[in-house]
Amino acid sequence: MPSALILIADGTEEMEFTITYDTLVRAGVFCTSAFVPAPASSPDEPDPPNRHPPQNPPFARGSRGINILPDTYFSPHALTADKFDALIIPGGAGGAKTLSESSPVQHLVRDFYEAKKIVGMICAGSLAALTSNLPTQPITSHPSVQSQLADKFEYSDKPVVVSGNLVTSRGPGTTFPFALTLVELLCGKAKREEVYAPMVFPVGTPW
Amino acid sequence: MPSALILIADGTEEMEFTITYDTLVRAGVFCTSAFVPAPASSPDEPDPPNRHPPQNPPFARGSRGINILPDTYFSPHALTADKFDALIIPGGAGGAKTLSESSPVQHLVRDFYEAKKIVGMICAGSLAALTSNLPTQPITSHPSVQSQLADKFEYSDKPVVVSGNLVTSRGPGTTFPFALTLVELLCGKAKREEVYAPMVFPVGTPW
Repeated sequence: MPSALILIADGTEEMEFTITYDTLVRAGVFCTSAFVPAPASSPDEPDPPNRHPPQNPPFARGSRGINILPDTYFSPHALTADKFDALIIPGGAGGAKTLSESSPVQHLVRDFYEAKKIVGMICAGSLAALTSNLPTQPITSHPSVQSQLADKFEYSDKPVVVSGNLVTSRGPGTTFPFALTLVELLCGKAKREEVYAPMVFPVGTPW
Repeated sequence: MPSALILIADGTEEMEFTITYDTLVRAGVFCTSAFVPAPASSPDEPDPPNRHPPQNPPFARGSRGINILPDTYFSPHALTADKFDALIIPGGAGGAKTLSESSPVQHLVRDFYEAKKIVGMICAGSLAALTSNLPTQPITSHPSVQSQLADKFEYSDKPVVVSGNLVTSRGPGTTFPFALTLVELLCGKAKREEVYAPMVFPVGTPW
């Protein structure tokens, strides 16, 4: 059974997280969501508005206020590239900032990438390709962060860009084709078709 | 500011819940999610596999294993049709069973419907139109429950069916057009367009 590690933080776009996780589970992928806390504020800075006090169990407050209980805390020692077939970085401005600026997450991204595991990034989550210093290659992202990526990468406005084992996408509206592309890469084309039908996409849907 | 009450239970399809809630929040709709517990088992019956012991705060275990912390418990005395502009019943077989078979939920559906508030149902959530004894009219649902609805209602396979103040839809793949239809009805066409653009739907998306 393929497996995927899906990171989540306060401010993660909950549609991007949920559509990806749910679609992968439908395909039989064993998914683990792991919470990455925002860095502690320095004494001079007020808490950002999307931080909440530590909870037990922890929960991530999504970008539009849906609270999701992750499966576990992110631990760089326990959650390593040899244990999963894919790593997913969802978007949402606040969540993507926490994930892409985390040094342990950057190391994890490089470990997955170099081990030829699937690395999926969507929306502002694509910033992690930059902060993790992945090689220059085709990429896409939410248009709002295009300018930060366009110098280093070969920027595309396709809904999903597959560049070797790096899979990037644009936003909530492209999350279904992003997730279905991940299913195809992890489980094959037949599984993608099996998962697709019961979702009841409208006639004419371009994915 | 328009407001919506979105019900959730163990087994709710988390994509349908999340896409609807998030899209409505993007449009400025004040959303409240309310948890409806599964009925207590009789002594002869084992607990169904998707029930969990009561938690504080409660959480709903989605159909594909994502745990969501609802905003509140469902209380038929506190959460009444006069306090909201819309009521939403998401799908997912287990969640829709709990919601559609709950007598307080059935009363709430009728209260919203008779007060001409928007009543939205998607996927197996459309079963609540039957159990709440809404009048015969055009409806759609997930194909898996079509046979239960086709005798009483004028069944359609359109992605979204607007019949007066009853709005029904089919499954995860139709949740974006369902949610955007709710935005248009609650907030107007201009707001729908404002919300649509930053979601970055692929060219050719038929909604």
